[in-house]
Amino acid sequence: MDAETIQSFLNELCDLAQRETLSRFRADVEITNKLASGFDPVTEADREAESVIRAAILKRYPDHGIVGEEFGTVNENARYKWIIDPVDGTKAFISGLPLWGTLIGLYLENKPLAGVMHQPFIEERFICNGHKSVWQHKGTEKVLSTSETQNLNDAIIMTTTPALFTAEERLIYDKLESQCRLPRYGADCYAYCVLAAGHVDLVVESGLNSYDIAALVPIVEKAGGCFTDWQGKSAADGGQVIAAANPELHMKALEVLNSG
Amino acid sequence: MDAETIQSFLNELCDLAQRETLSRFRADVEITNKLASGFDPVTEADREAESVIRAAILKRYPDHGIVGEEFGTVNENARYKWIIDPVDGTKAFISGLPLWGTLIGLYLENKPLAGVMHQPFIEERFICNGHKSVWQHKGTEKVLSTSETQNLNDAIIMTTTPALFTAEERLIYDKLESQCRLPRYGADCYAYCVLAAGHVDLVVESGLNSYDIAALVPIVEKAGGCFTDWQGKSAADGGQVIAAANPELHMKALEVLNSG
Repeated sequence: MDAETIQSFLNELCDLAQRETLSRFRADVEITNKLASGFDPVTEADREAESVIRAAILKRYPDHGIVGEEFGTVNENARYKWIIDPVDGTKAFISGLPLWGTLIGLYLENKPLAGVMHQPFIEERFICNGHKSVWQHKGTEKVLSTSETQNLNDAIIMTTTPALFTAEERLIYDKLESQCRLPRYGADCYAYCVLAAGHVDLVVESGLNSYDIAALVPIVEKAGGCFTDWQGKSAADGGQVIAAANPELHMKALEVLNSG
Repeated sequence: MDAETIQSFLNELCDLAQRETLSRFRADVEITNKLASGFDPVTEADREAESVIRAAILKRYPDHGIVGEEFGTVNENARYKWIIDPVDGTKAFISGLPLWGTLIGLYLENKPLAGVMHQPFIEERFICNGHKSVWQHKGTEKVLSTSETQNLNDAIIMTTTPALFTAEERLIYDKLESQCRLPRYGADCYAYCVLAAGHVDLVVESGLNSYDIAALVPIVEKAGGCFTDWQGKSAADGGQVIAAANPELHMKALEVLNSG
């Protein structure tokens, strides 16, 4: 698949999904809790958006694999696999906050190749087509490029909420946060995209699933950033992840995360 | 001043201010730290936006008072006073996150009467014209109305970051948060507006200035919500504030905040 085909198909999928998400955003939508203990909400927006994305992929590329947050996996061993989180940031979605996004990633031989984060209410798309990362907004398109911030004490660091860390992880995260210039909370997938755009320098999270980051890894990497787990290895399976604006900052942050 | 005049003038001020803020959002803007210890950033966007707002008020209503975050107070004893926070959420602004807003409040005899929160990147305006609160977005206007959520365990609670609380306040806030269904962080003025729109049920913060909330108090109250300090008294001077979707929920939250 060439870059143009990928980008064009990702945009088609976003057009389909936004009909299902936008009409239910800030509307009276039924919320189901997926957890027996705790609160992991899912709505019709998640389910309907994933359904239309899956149907469009199956129609165009019946041999490809699909992994989705809500409806599981098909063609697991396919060379190309589409990884879908129809609404990343469902908690923001049900709170009327526009920093959720539809994530669609594309793996080639189990490695993140391309992906999109679409925030339809703000009309922003952050896309990696396999060769470059771009931002689309109201008819304009710009190439994304991460910041050159190399020191922790100049860095803006983000995490969706420190409550997602275990107690032990929290101590490690707090140590890193305390060395940075400014922490910001609350942005889910949007945090990784403002990092790709050069506005934020670090994103550190844990407990993520592969569908939370499949689309974001290539967007960050092709913009010049690093995206690994806390040990500096592949983040593709989720878990503890760190995105950094550049290799120097990434190395300094990893040192703190692993300083014991 | 009648409601129509107020709303129309607030919209004029927003039109002027957004030329100064939007062009500098996600641009290479110089950041000045206002604190010797800590980080309280201000940018040209704050200063230029406040300047054009002040100039427009002075021209139209030379006898009115003005209180602004960046340039202080004139005509302090005037019957009508305009309270300006040109960019509420400067930390979000410099992080490329679109949940900051331009706040312009209007006091009549030192009491909050009307106000606007304008988020120009998303093109949303939350306005109270003294009689009702409305939301304007891409040519549509809807009347704002808070939620009917009456129990803490059904409530979504927001605060910009728990780090803004003192240690003692944090214990009190955490007790309240633990009784709610879902906490969300990171939205500054935007949190109060999604509360006015019925999506969020509680916002609890501390250390605020009057210019942080002057515009928001009437937006929340005329949408059906309550906006007080943690003792249930006027929040007009800032400090510890709580906004609640309705009197029942407000009372229950105040009980927890004051349960010692």
